[in-house]
Amino acid sequence: MKYLIAVLFCAVALCADPLPSWNKTDSKKQIIGFVEKVTDPKSPDFVPRDERIAVFDNDGTLWSERPVYFQLIFIFDQIKKMAPDHPEWQTQEPYASVLKGDYKSALSAKEEALVEMALVAHSNMTGAEFKQAARAWLDSAEHPKTGMLYKEMVFQPMLELLAYLRAKGFKTFIVSGGGVDFIRVFAEETYGIPPEQVVGTTLKAKYEVRDGKGVLVKEPEIALIDDKAGKPVGIYQFIGRRPIFAAGNSDGDFEMLEYTTTGEGPRFGMLVHHNDSQREWAYDRESHVGQLNRGLDEGPDRGWLIVDMKNDWAKIYPSVAD
Amino acid sequence: MKYLIAVLFCAVALCADPLPSWNKTDSKKQIIGFVEKVTDPKSPDFVPRDERIAVFDNDGTLWSERPVYFQLIFIFDQIKKMAPDHPEWQTQEPYASVLKGDYKSALSAKEEALVEMALVAHSNMTGAEFKQAARAWLDSAEHPKTGMLYKEMVFQPMLELLAYLRAKGFKTFIVSGGGVDFIRVFAEETYGIPPEQVVGTTLKAKYEVRDGKGVLVKEPEIALIDDKAGKPVGIYQFIGRRPIFAAGNSDGDFEMLEYTTTGEGPRFGMLVHHNDSQREWAYDRESHVGQLNRGLDEGPDRGWLIVDMKNDWAKIYPSVAD
Repeated sequence: MKYLIAVLFCAVALCADPLPSWNKTDSKKQIIGFVEKVTDPKSPDFVPRDERIAVFDNDGTLWSERPVYFQLIFIFDQIKKMAPDHPEWQTQEPYASVLKGDYKSALSAKEEALVEMALVAHSNMTGAEFKQAARAWLDSAEHPKTGMLYKEMVFQPMLELLAYLRAKGFKTFIVSGGGVDFIRVFAEETYGIPPEQVVGTTLKAKYEVRDGKGVLVKEPEIALIDDKAGKPVGIYQFIGRRPIFAAGNSDGDFEMLEYTTTGEGPRFGMLVHHNDSQREWAYDRESHVGQLNRGLDEGPDRGWLIVDMKNDWAKIYPSVAD
Repeated sequence: MKYLIAVLFCAVALCADPLPSWNKTDSKKQIIGFVEKVTDPKSPDFVPRDERIAVFDNDGTLWSERPVYFQLIFIFDQIKKMAPDHPEWQTQEPYASVLKGDYKSALSAKEEALVEMALVAHSNMTGAEFKQAARAWLDSAEHPKTGMLYKEMVFQPMLELLAYLRAKGFKTFIVSGGGVDFIRVFAEETYGIPPEQVVGTTLKAKYEVRDGKGVLVKEPEIALIDDKAGKPVGIYQFIGRRPIFAAGNSDGDFEMLEYTTTGEGPRFGMLVHHNDSQREWAYDRESHVGQLNRGLDEGPDRGWLIVDMKNDWAKIYPSVAD
């Protein structure tokens, strides 16, 4: 729906300004300049339509990620729903802290215990069952600070950028450290990105026939961690060619931007810098989510655009007035 | 190119017969009947454009697979090219037999030794290096019986079916037991299927920076065997939704067709039955490649179309006169 609104808001090809929620700063000029030169058949930098692959991180790039990755809150809520079948969780960490609502203590558990809990919340169910659980959560859960649904906390300027690129013949993909099945539930209606164009952290799956119907069962084992150096691996395995445009916001996206921008010919890399504590959040080098350190140090020399959220974006969320 | 020719041959939407190389048999009627009912907005069986996912096996479904899978011949040729750096292969099986050109003895080696040889021919090189090797082979290697390039041994009726489905709003995918990187080299020009719509057997890959450039190195370890029950797994992981149309030719495709046709709503499964020893090959239950047994037994009761190559197809290869 939001994607539709973004498109209707500006029938891109005919519209004077394809990115109305971007202020008239140098960032906007750089983006439009790149898109125009690679799509103009008379330009020496022209790129054929088939090769116009654009990849986007999700958490912190297309939607917010504070106080923690939204999928983590989904995991906590799933654990609460599953708790009646697991009396042992009352005394076992990090489950016990989650059940008490003490997320801070839960998150201080060892990484393996947290990964294990994430696997519990995401596996031993069919793909359809998982989808239903994620759908119900996305349609109802509200963010503690904004009171908005999580799926409403997407960035209007990025929705416009996605629509603009597609109108110019780009194929847009999500390449996220988040769980692919979780993102696929809302990516089409929210971002206009169909399931087959979402790459993410992937669990193994097992094919079974239940009541005569073929189903996939999600297994508690990771097939691909789509983060850091795993992002170019995911791109290579799932998309099969090097993108020409990549957008991220954290050092988890560094290798994806590096892979994208070290190919031959015209390339574009951008990092969204969260520096707007009023309308969103301000964080970078010291943050426990979306840490951005190396990208700030090396990005400018590599020609990457550092998006200044505070000054470059006229609007953050679609439903909040400017 | 072949894809272009197929499209130009019949500007599908306007053409009276979207499948000119299919004889006027019941098979053709069934295919067109299905496509028309799911694409007619007034039909109770209408399927929205986004959900029109069609999956195709490659070996034996889109191109020939005799005397052995074509990729196996590529592997033999790669091993010969690599042999100067591996003097030990002169006495080590199955390499020694391959180097003598005794493929029959080579293929009688243990399965693990054959898989290991396949991995040797496909890994410890960058994606770009592999692509170059596969491209050179596909552009030059000739089939021992027909003298045609392997990539010319694609089925004209299937090229027309792919183009017809796409003209009707379907998104077409390959889901093959063959190596994904091998198929991606020729799928776009031959079938009109871009790399990101090819799912296949996948090796692990490692991201590295070489001379300042991000590259993927193919590792000698399998990430996904995209065959039998691995096909629905590949579909689930890579495409993320259940197809409504599936085409195969062997029992390696059984689970893919089962998964496709046991979903809700209108579904179509088809198996190409190789029964034309004159124009192609005739084989099914006893064959060492493309064995088709369970599909012939259970397919008809499941409503799957068994394509009678000899009588249903007016033409086999694009470049051979009728």
